[in-house]
Amino acid sequence: MTALPQENDYVTTLRATSNELEKILYQAFPVLDHGFIRVVDYMGDDAAVVQAARVSYGKGTKRKSEDQGLINYLLRHRHTTPFEMCEIKFHVKMPIFVARQWLRHRTASVNEYSGRYSIMDKEFYIPAPEHIAAQSLSNNQGRGDILEGRDAARVLEYLKHDALLTYKHYQELINFDDEGNIIDEDRPSLARELARMNLPVNFYTQFYWKIDLHNFMHFLSLRADSHAQYEIRVYAEKMLEILKAWMPMTHHAFMEYKMGATHLSKTATDIIRRRLKGEAIDAKSSGLSAREWGELVTLFPEVGA
Amino acid sequence: MTALPQENDYVTTLRATSNELEKILYQAFPVLDHGFIRVVDYMGDDAAVVQAARVSYGKGTKRKSEDQGLINYLLRHRHTTPFEMCEIKFHVKMPIFVARQWLRHRTASVNEYSGRYSIMDKEFYIPAPEHIAAQSLSNNQGRGDILEGRDAARVLEYLKHDALLTYKHYQELINFDDEGNIIDEDRPSLARELARMNLPVNFYTQFYWKIDLHNFMHFLSLRADSHAQYEIRVYAEKMLEILKAWMPMTHHAFMEYKMGATHLSKTATDIIRRRLKGEAIDAKSSGLSAREWGELVTLFPEVGA
Amino acid sequence: MTALPQENDYVTTLRATSNELEKILYQAFPVLDHGFIRVVDYMGDDAAVVQAARVSYGKGTKRKSEDQGLINYLLRHRHTTPFEMCEIKFHVKMPIFVARQWLRHRTASVNEYSGRYSIMDKEFYIPAPEHIAAQSLSNNQGRGDILEGRDAARVLEYLKHDALLTYKHYQELINFDDEGNIIDEDRPSLARELARMNLPVNFYTQFYWKIDLHNFMHFLSLRADSHAQYEIRVYAEKMLEILKAWMPMTHHAFMEYKMGATHLSKTATDIIRRRLKGEAIDAKSSGLSAREWGELVTLFPEVGA
Amino acid sequence: MTALPQENDYVTTLRATSNELEKILYQAFPVLDHGFIRVVDYMGDDAAVVQAARVSYGKGTKRKSEDQGLINYLLRHRHTTPFEMCEIKFHVKMPIFVARQWLRHRTASVNEYSGRYSIMDKEFYIPAPEHIAAQSLSNNQGRGDILEGRDAARVLEYLKHDALLTYKHYQELINFDDEGNIIDEDRPSLARELARMNLPVNFYTQFYWKIDLHNFMHFLSLRADSHAQYEIRVYAEKMLEILKAWMPMTHHAFMEYKMGATHLSKTATDIIRRRLKGEAIDAKSSGLSAREWGELVTLFPEVGA
Repeated sequence: MTALPQENDYVTTLRATSNELEKILYQAFPVLDHGFIRVVDYMGDDAAVVQAARVSYGKGTKRKSEDQGLINYLLRHRHTTPFEMCEIKFHVKMPIFVARQWLRHRTASVNEYSGRYSIMDKEFYIPAPEHIAAQSLSNNQGRGDILEGRDAARVLEYLKHDALLTYKHYQELINFDDEGNIIDEDRPSLARELARMNLPVNFYTQFYWKIDLHNFMHFLSLRADSHAQYEIRVYAEKMLEILKAWMPMTHHAFMEYKMGATHLSKTATDIIRRRLKGEAIDAKSSGLSAREWGELVTLFPEVGA
Repeated sequence: MTALPQENDYVTTLRATSNELEKILYQAFPVLDHGFIRVVDYMGDDAAVVQAARVSYGKGTKRKSEDQGLINYLLRHRHTTPFEMCEIKFHVKMPIFVARQWLRHRTASVNEYSGRYSIMDKEFYIPAPEHIAAQSLSNNQGRGDILEGRDAARVLEYLKHDALLTYKHYQELINFDDEGNIIDEDRPSLARELARMNLPVNFYTQFYWKIDLHNFMHFLSLRADSHAQYEIRVYAEKMLEILKAWMPMTHHAFMEYKMGATHLSKTATDIIRRRLKGEAIDAKSSGLSAREWGELVTLFPEVGA
Repeated sequence: MTALPQENDYVTTLRATSNELEKILYQAFPVLDHGFIRVVDYMGDDAAVVQAARVSYGKGTKRKSEDQGLINYLLRHRHTTPFEMCEIKFHVKMPIFVARQWLRHRTASVNEYSGRYSIMDKEFYIPAPEHIAAQSLSNNQGRGDILEGRDAARVLEYLKHDALLTYKHYQELINFDDEGNIIDEDRPSLARELARMNLPVNFYTQFYWKIDLHNFMHFLSLRADSHAQYEIRVYAEKMLEILKAWMPMTHHAFMEYKMGATHLSKTATDIIRRRLKGEAIDAKSSGLSAREWGELVTLFPEVGA
Repeated sequence: MTALPQENDYVTTLRATSNELEKILYQAFPVLDHGFIRVVDYMGDDAAVVQAARVSYGKGTKRKSEDQGLINYLLRHRHTTPFEMCEIKFHVKMPIFVARQWLRHRTASVNEYSGRYSIMDKEFYIPAPEHIAAQSLSNNQGRGDILEGRDAARVLEYLKHDALLTYKHYQELINFDDEGNIIDEDRPSLARELARMNLPVNFYTQFYWKIDLHNFMHFLSLRADSHAQYEIRVYAEKMLEILKAWMPMTHHAFMEYKMGATHLSKTATDIIRRRLKGEAIDAKSSGLSAREWGELVTLFPEVGA
């Protein structure tokens, strides 16, 4: 698929408009080896969040200088509905295994390229050498050391070989070559909805994806997190930049109260209180599990000191 | 509450824009005696629906003349996701009992004026004389004959009297008069979250309400229907006009395939088939319940002829 | 409405069953002056959460002693989907203004008593004297001092008088008396969907309400919070007890990691770190707003010491 | 993964219980070559739908003989909320490309086997010879003629060869053999979250899937439809049987008013009316598009006669 929707010419509107986001509208930012992300539409800006919140308080527009404070307040106190009043729509291209994680977020609208209907592109994800890592020994769903030399080469060899081979067979099955011409007029073409099953999940798919600002931030808080798989995190990190261009105040509040924030359990809160009063606490007397104690000490080294 | 968000000046945008909707943006259309509805933002247009559908088919923009056909196809075949790609945001003012029906639709975002936080306005709904009707004898949740003369007058008298009295007492409780001045400095003001409980459900509330096009049409199909209560139907009818200005193609398809469409049960489908072949069918031989037979004959009088 | 669904006799089932919850199934717990809450059905137990989580890990049932640890882990790390695997269904009766707050939670299923269809009961909420409070001076949506003597008496007088009067007029309008008999055969009955608009929001309504465990805990975290209005909080507090009977492990984790937990912003996290290292910090050098500094010092008094 | 959750012993409950569904609870029904579907829990029965509807009408339990009529009424008139009051939970195993279609239904809860965390099983879908079909010439997303002889053999050969090869390489990458033993102690194991990307979408995955009855019927109406891909339709057809065992009245209404029902557009409704009055109509005078006329004539051949 090469024909992407084209940008319109400039027109006038009375709607809330983000000048910084307009500058990058429709622009495809490359992600991974063949993927991209681009904004194709949006609704609202920081002022729209404020406006929605103020209808609850029965008050009209105030000084803009108070908007940051109100947005901070809303996010801190989980008054989430004003953030639902804004929307953003992306066109994203990514490997199928990334799409599978992505689409587990159910509070968004999606239109995906259909392998039942159309021929899948010959594009698949091959990790850059610096992202080929061993299974983590401590975290069952994580990566450990980077593979080097022959070990890394073997991985690349397998992945490339199998992607090319399965795609070649896919073409044989649907009976179309790279140029979209029929390979053999005397042979039937297997139904596309069947042939596609031969392709591995590192092949690329693409979709339109629309989400409101509240659910977008929830997505980012999980997918821009260090525990997210690298291949989806790079999309989330690009989207964080887009959020900053679109809604600078909301982005600021999000980094302060969500991405960079700390959650302390009831017991951990009490430990901090006791430690601030000068009490010495160790893993045993903390009442925490070994794992939780470890996490707390990583966050606040002085607690274990 | 008097200070409503004001319209912006015109700015330029690259986004999909509906010229007809821009003309009425922010304009408050009166509904009922003190209510209104106005569009405060929107995202997308007919072309955005088409664009989202075509990403599934892996094809770019086609001739505009084919767009209506594609939109018809999507709506007929319940391909609903492309319609989720558009959004509209309203500012609506309506009686509380209408808001209660309205907000049973859960697939929308809402910010409502808060009677916990702010003082409720002295505005309540009194039906126009031509809408004061007796309880329907055939439909437990409907209206029958219009009341006349003394009967109608009595209704108006009760409603007005009680609204004015309860509001006067509400003011006494919160200790604020019509001008927002404290009535008696020596008396405490009851908490607003408590005082408001004295007000009947014909008092007006207001909210920002944002919904995607798919769910908007679902809302309209239920609330612009003749079985909907008059007081919410008038809002839905105004929104149908707004839909027409915003998305003429989608509006056309919606009227053809949803609002004006007919659903026939399996048995009713078979009856139509038999009748077209010339078979005579009556209530008894139809296999339908009396109520369903009545509905079918109303729709197709020749079936019972 | 008096005829409530009756409990079944005991039958056998292979399903996950909570013995403690079975003991109170169908039992109506009184809340406020005329309200109640009762569990009418449920699905799943603590083990069902564990079971759903383990399908992700590809592992079958383990020792029960490890279940609490896994549930803690899921809740701490926002792995919320296993908690969606359980459901609870309530029958609740509450004042309309409480129902209005309640139903803003959209991720639940509801069937509410219909004032369009049926006659509203003569039941309205009158606060107990100890809950009649003045408007808070510091919190626009809160309560301050309890009203005493004449001030409290006046509130009760207004509320009772207006509820009785509006209900009497409601009966006149629908032309039915307390016993459900027609008052005047020669007068038409106003449509119920119109007559009900005369009733204040302290009248009782009731509904069936079904929600999954994840969204139930979200509801509780907001409505059992000290900032929630008293009249909804009492329902949430009763539901916390029900959660404890139903899912003791999940309830334990919920109290530890959600209800009793602390959220620190990025800046506040840093302040705790600095303070633990011995640095003296005051409101000015903290980098926090006055309000946030106040909240932090309330939570950790030693920070400001 | 072999360790599946085991059935409990029989216990007693006061909850609504479906005897017919209890008989097949936990039983794995085979679907496709390696898939299955089994019910692991449920909530409610036909009576629970009726009960929820009647709370709206303010009436208690009636004669059971009226239940079917009420359920029919609810479904015909799109009173969908009582059907949300029941839930069913499945454990399903299916190829990834089927899971991808399945999970586009967002109104359900899911816990899926994780290829990040666990080793993928050596199980992949190979169509039975009678389901290997050519691309449809009339329907871009459908199947045409069944392939025969060498053509079919070639398809099977490609699919089997590539599945075995990619899985062998997957094992090499994670460094585990069929018995779960390390292949080469001196080699690192590639992170599972990376290695899995080599597997085609005909490999099997599995998940727990919980959905309410309303959304379940919506899923069935789309996926048991003749336009659905065969590989997901076989799951839906098995679920239709399960629905019948669980809720015989709701199943009956569903087949009559949804699965077997007909939707006529405004124009098509008018054509039927005209035809019943004896008017002759052809494609040209019908006002329908060629495709719609064709569909109408297929449904009601006499219209075109």
